[in-house]
Amino acid sequence: MNASQRRSNCPLNVALELFGDKWSLLILRDMLIVGKSRYGEFLDSPEGISTNILADRLKQLACCGLVEKLRDPANGKTSLYLPTAMGVSLLPLLLEVIRWGLTNLGDTGVPEFVLTALRQGPDQLIAECETRLHNERLTLAG
Amino acid sequence: MNASQRRSNCPLNVALELFGDKWSLLILRDMLIVGKSRYGEFLDSPEGISTNILADRLKQLACCGLVEKLRDPANGKTSLYLPTAMGVSLLPLLLEVIRWGLTNLGDTGVPEFVLTALRQGPDQLIAECETRLHNERLTLAG
Repeated sequence: MNASQRRSNCPLNVALELFGDKWSLLILRDMLIVGKSRYGEFLDSPEGISTNILADRLKQLACCGLVEKLRDPANGKTSLYLPTAMGVSLLPLLLEVIRWGLTNLGDTGVPEFVLTALRQGPDQLIAECETRLHNERLTLAG
Repeated sequence: MNASQRRSNCPLNVALELFGDKWSLLILRDMLIVGKSRYGEFLDSPEGISTNILADRLKQLACCGLVEKLRDPANGKTSLYLPTAMGVSLLPLLLEVIRWGLTNLGDTGVPEFVLTALRQGPDQLIAECETRLHNERLTLAG
């Protein structure tokens, strides 16, 4: 998306044009906090994303530079989806939405990984995510 | 929306079920940062929201308790839309999305009110917003 196609140059608007929908941030949560990287793993998440929406969102996330699509060495027919540095930089924003949701919308049955992520905080989460991605890319290259 | 209708109890998902779209947070930006409260003012924003989407989103924001719809004393036929306390509590999240957008997506032609809001920070913005809403509600009651 180049600047002339944007609805406006407000950074809030530009961000929403990238991930303002009901699914993109859930896929990024699965990548950044849960550590998922395969198509089938995203399909398995409790929200029950449909396969056509998942394919569309992964394509869009790759297109706008938040996610990188790589060949899965364990299975030449499938792909791995890893967050880019710009994707990893969404972690503080994700935590802020999670914190708001937990404060305002009740805490019944909140998944344990969410509470762990909040306890860790953005700095530790980013460091862990970067280490994990570094190791995954080393394995892919090796 | 009660808990049994949710796709999952992850607070990120519950938040996205309320405002995970391309428009809701822009309307809340206009209310919380720009200080708009009237239908025609939201229509005038640079993103060019259509009247049917605006009507739908305002109804949804009121339905989930983020916005309160009141009669406009200046014109009995129109309404005022004011953020609730839960709506105001979205300011830190809005600022986080704005900060991310500004850092990652370029800063060409960024509206001045966005830069002012970032300089002020969440605490001052929340205080100003609460004072403005308190005065508006006093005027409406008086």
